[in-house]
Amino acid sequence: MSFADNRSCPAGPARGRPRSEAVEQAILEGVMQLLEDGVPLAELSIERIARTAGVGKATIYRRWSGKEELFVDVLRTAEPPDPELPGTSMRDDLIVILESLRQRGLVSRSSAILHNVYVQMKTSPRIWAAYHAGVVAPRRVLMLDVLRRGQRDGELRPDIDLDLANDMFVGAMLVRTVMRPDGDLPEDLAEHIVDITLEGLRPVSSTVS
Amino acid sequence: MSFADNRSCPAGPARGRPRSEAVEQAILEGVMQLLEDGVPLAELSIERIARTAGVGKATIYRRWSGKEELFVDVLRTAEPPDPELPGTSMRDDLIVILESLRQRGLVSRSSAILHNVYVQMKTSPRIWAAYHAGVVAPRRVLMLDVLRRGQRDGELRPDIDLDLANDMFVGAMLVRTVMRPDGDLPEDLAEHIVDITLEGLRPVSSTVS
Repeated sequence: MSFADNRSCPAGPARGRPRSEAVEQAILEGVMQLLEDGVPLAELSIERIARTAGVGKATIYRRWSGKEELFVDVLRTAEPPDPELPGTSMRDDLIVILESLRQRGLVSRSSAILHNVYVQMKTSPRIWAAYHAGVVAPRRVLMLDVLRRGQRDGELRPDIDLDLANDMFVGAMLVRTVMRPDGDLPEDLAEHIVDITLEGLRPVSSTVS
Repeated sequence: MSFADNRSCPAGPARGRPRSEAVEQAILEGVMQLLEDGVPLAELSIERIARTAGVGKATIYRRWSGKEELFVDVLRTAEPPDPELPGTSMRDDLIVILESLRQRGLVSRSSAILHNVYVQMKTSPRIWAAYHAGVVAPRRVLMLDVLRRGQRDGELRPDIDLDLANDMFVGAMLVRTVMRPDGDLPEDLAEHIVDITLEGLRPVSSTVS
């Protein structure tokens, strides 16, 4: 798996020049290399990363404030990129978001390292907090925006709490991808979950067309 | 928190006599004590547990085949007991099951040790496998039984895959309890999730009563 292709470009005025990008890539790949070699997350030091990437420690500290922030960027690089939403309807946007969760699940299953990193990450409150702030929280904001728009446009019950709607749509997919490593992830799962969550699990009464 | 009150009684012909129960309780509490003292799961040895509980190693091996099985019993003791299902309807049973997940979430939040143990457990494939086989899998079987009965009795759409229905009902609750440590866990959450999952999130059309 290549981690360089789909990474989101880090923000910052001095970045984006080819030379700088190459250095950043070398650092991110250095971390990945150490993880692939089986170095536990807790033993990854900036010094060791610098040595592996062939750069000085100061080069790393110019770009990341610490190990936690660097590590979150490594994960962001390894994960599929955040999806572009079609914006045609709440349903369409939800399917794209849930499909990206499914893809993330597939990547995590196919990469023992990545899977291991997720598990280790949760044992480090600082790294978990950085990952949550940098990756999980923005995704939730995006999801709530989609639901708010859907409620405004009459695609979602007006009486539903958006937090709960969010947890219902993503819950089933997360149970499949994160909690059940052997759970089926068929291609139409995202569409299926979105439609069934909208329709409900109660049998359709014969008086309803 | 007392761990002795709500533990499920271990099966076995020689067990259940007061003396034997007291020994088992001392061993289970010994493990909890070590965890409370901050001993990492990976460093818990049968020898150390025996010393803490004031019993011989053979006493432990007579009751548990190894550290993994013992540890799963410790967790089972610390968690709220599995619920008794009313059996009055699928809806009622689902609410009781989801409520027990909510209770488990509350206990895990109120106990830093227990929370820490869950996290550590996932880094040990053997312990996680034992916990999965001893606790998670039976709960899933129970849940699927309830859903199958509901489908037979016309409470659940006949075209729905039971695995998916399971993941939808428990997904929202697990997102709240396990993945969002700051997520609201109001008292009526279980009932709310079950009813909304049955009804669906689509706005009720005016032609439907």
